[in-house]
Amino acid sequence: MTATATDLSRTETLSLFALTAACVALLANTFQGDGEPLIASLALSGIAFSATYSMIRWLGPTFMKAGLKGVDMSKHHKKEIPECMGGICAIVYLMVVIVFVPFPFYKDIVAATSGGGNRDVVLHVEHVEQGRFLHRFPHSKLASYLSAIISLQSIALLGIGDDLFDIRWRHKLFIPAFASIPLLVVYFVDFGVTSIVVPLPLRPYLGELLNVGFLYYAYMCAIAIFSPNSINILAGINGIEVTQSIVIAVLLALNDCLYLFTPYPHPATDSHLFSLYFLLPFLGVSFALLCHNWYPAKVFVGDTYCYFAGMVFVVVSILGHFSKTLVLLLIPQIFNFIYSAPQLFGLIPCPRHRLPKFNARTGLLEPSVTPWTPERQPKPPIAWALHLLHKLKLLRVTTDKEGKFVSTTNFTILNLWLVWRGPLKENRLAMEITAMQTVVGLFGLFVRHKLALLVFKEDNWALPT
Amino acid sequence: MTATATDLSRTETLSLFALTAACVALLANTFQGDGEPLIASLALSGIAFSATYSMIRWLGPTFMKAGLKGVDMSKHHKKEIPECMGGICAIVYLMVVIVFVPFPFYKDIVAATSGGGNRDVVLHVEHVEQGRFLHRFPHSKLASYLSAIISLQSIALLGIGDDLFDIRWRHKLFIPAFASIPLLVVYFVDFGVTSIVVPLPLRPYLGELLNVGFLYYAYMCAIAIFSPNSINILAGINGIEVTQSIVIAVLLALNDCLYLFTPYPHPATDSHLFSLYFLLPFLGVSFALLCHNWYPAKVFVGDTYCYFAGMVFVVVSILGHFSKTLVLLLIPQIFNFIYSAPQLFGLIPCPRHRLPKFNARTGLLEPSVTPWTPERQPKPPIAWALHLLHKLKLLRVTTDKEGKFVSTTNFTILNLWLVWRGPLKENRLAMEITAMQTVVGLFGLFVRHKLALLVFKEDNWALPT
Repeated sequence: MTATATDLSRTETLSLFALTAACVALLANTFQGDGEPLIASLALSGIAFSATYSMIRWLGPTFMKAGLKGVDMSKHHKKEIPECMGGICAIVYLMVVIVFVPFPFYKDIVAATSGGGNRDVVLHVEHVEQGRFLHRFPHSKLASYLSAIISLQSIALLGIGDDLFDIRWRHKLFIPAFASIPLLVVYFVDFGVTSIVVPLPLRPYLGELLNVGFLYYAYMCAIAIFSPNSINILAGINGIEVTQSIVIAVLLALNDCLYLFTPYPHPATDSHLFSLYFLLPFLGVSFALLCHNWYPAKVFVGDTYCYFAGMVFVVVSILGHFSKTLVLLLIPQIFNFIYSAPQLFGLIPCPRHRLPKFNARTGLLEPSVTPWTPERQPKPPIAWALHLLHKLKLLRVTTDKEGKFVSTTNFTILNLWLVWRGPLKENRLAMEITAMQTVVGLFGLFVRHKLALLVFKEDNWALPT
Repeated sequence: MTATATDLSRTETLSLFALTAACVALLANTFQGDGEPLIASLALSGIAFSATYSMIRWLGPTFMKAGLKGVDMSKHHKKEIPECMGGICAIVYLMVVIVFVPFPFYKDIVAATSGGGNRDVVLHVEHVEQGRFLHRFPHSKLASYLSAIISLQSIALLGIGDDLFDIRWRHKLFIPAFASIPLLVVYFVDFGVTSIVVPLPLRPYLGELLNVGFLYYAYMCAIAIFSPNSINILAGINGIEVTQSIVIAVLLALNDCLYLFTPYPHPATDSHLFSLYFLLPFLGVSFALLCHNWYPAKVFVGDTYCYFAGMVFVVVSILGHFSKTLVLLLIPQIFNFIYSAPQLFGLIPCPRHRLPKFNARTGLLEPSVTPWTPERQPKPPIAWALHLLHKLKLLRVTTDKEGKFVSTTNFTILNLWLVWRGPLKENRLAMEITAMQTVVGLFGLFVRHKLALLVFKEDNWALPT
């Protein structure tokens, strides 16, 4: 099957159809009971997987015709493949979470309209339609759910704009800041909680809760800018954008589950359910994208996907009040960003592309380098720092006989990994980085749940909902 | 100044700067008092005008580079100009309404956090941040506001998709249906009112309120599909998409004002304020677009604008519960749709473009025609109908000596207007259609407010908020 063949194979059609049918049945079944929203979310995620998988296949040529295409530079045969397929993920995801809106509120609709005792569905619907007995409805939960959707739609709109118009790097940085405005505005209107729990050793000086006011919004905005951009810069080989996002999403979901299966009902249960409702469909569309984007990639994901993925994490962690946990899961991204900083901020020349170099003879990826000419050498302090990094095995520096710089590897975690591990096949590199992300993330969760109790008294603070 | 010159002239810069400065001052001033949301909305609309005006100028070449361009067929010099500029309007509009979110709730935040008496702003902010005293906050209003934004973002996303990928007509029709899902879902969760007021003559049989249940959702969905598409098909000459939208928006705003300046506080005041908050920024971005799109057009608006405009009307009229009023204002669009139906549904051949024909010799627009060959003539009943329409002056039919059809004018209101009025200059035609829209709309409002009382007892029903 070639990349432009838009038909699903018979096996694919049957599998996707079976999955969709099972999910629809599961979804229909939730109406029988209490409308279990978690089951409904799982079923909708399965449907999202099928829809995304098929639409990426079907719409590939349409995207290429509209100019959304790119060349995979790490392959022998450099042919054009569709770009910006993350846009499809985003649209399917948004549809699904919008359709999902009534499910978490099913119980509340029932409780508010029939007095709680009567569970006859036919009667509910009749009562719901009177609309005057909904006073107990948890509108604040609904509002935060909707604000999350608005933020995600904003990032999708701006991300597609970026993929279309190739916005400059400096301007790109602020796209997520714009998209986080709805979130912050609703956070302000809706919760307005800007107090942070003070670690035990500092409590004698600061009290239990410290109100940081405006700074809390600045902090949330910083997270919102960092998360999408950090995923966007850990890119360049097939599948890496999607696998890192999947790992982070799975670990966040795992963290949520820790709160759901406690022996006593945890006060933060609602926040973590909320988080799962957004993460499960994201995993659905991401796995579908991965099927097409894994080595050898038949489609590219585009900046839209990276921004969108980063924003999903921001939304669930801010509205679920576990943004510190997100930071722990982003450690490889944080390392990659700090490590990239000398090139991003112009201390060291930054070529247009820093992705690992494909060696056509061996078929392996090697670290890409920034060349230095004898005329243009780094300034002494920078030269000293580069040599130090080389000694610490955090860089590979090549010098000529006179000790002049010939080349230095580019400052990305992918190149660094290749410096450590030697030339690797593209899929092998992606797998190793993904494994590293998983291990580091699991360690982060361990720190969060076992070590955090040393500095905080309670595990988590519940929010009034 | 040519279409590709991206700089604003000195006069433009100064005027826009002055407008923006005045609006920012106005906006800052609202924080002094009760945070008058209507004034804030007006100020933000002015800022939206400046932003849209400048961005359309600046981003024109970027859009053309990305392939979003078209040729104006009704001009002597057929040069390419940027297409899809409605996308810029949509993005600016969405930003503005998102930033506006806290304003209508300012009073509620104050009331909920300081007990209503204390109006010291410094204190409010401190109290707001505790976040635990917001129980009286009107979250249901916030939720409907947010759902409106989600619907509008959805239509912007799908509209941009349409402009990029040239979706087929049959599929296009349902784009607004998808975008209305958020609105309907939140309507279901949030109000659930599906009763309609029964006209007086029918009350003995049906009672005062008739619960139409599911049909009410079907009705809302039908309005949501019709309104954006009807604006999209009344198109083809410079400025007409924007002017018709502006006329409808101004008349809706006028209708809203009728409820605000009543001697006693009208029960529907909140719904109509809500409507104004969405209409004013829409007028802001639309006037900015009109400056560039009016004859001779320097940019095209794209399907995005038409869908977006139609959806703004749908959103305000559904959430404000005056969808019947919207129908009265869409009379020219309804006529155009019914008149177009024979071609849209294939009874009569439909060429790719039905816009009026530009006569390069006279510089005037003439009705465009569908040609009939001697071999391919309409079937007898259709031929009879065409002759009848010709006699009723609702069509111009040209026949040869044997009575065979040579051509019939295309079934659009623009061509019909040219049949009635003779060849016109493009801007003259746009002005006359706009004037007609205004007169018909004013008549519609007159019917709504003076004649409706003959069949309904009350003027409007208030919703519990």
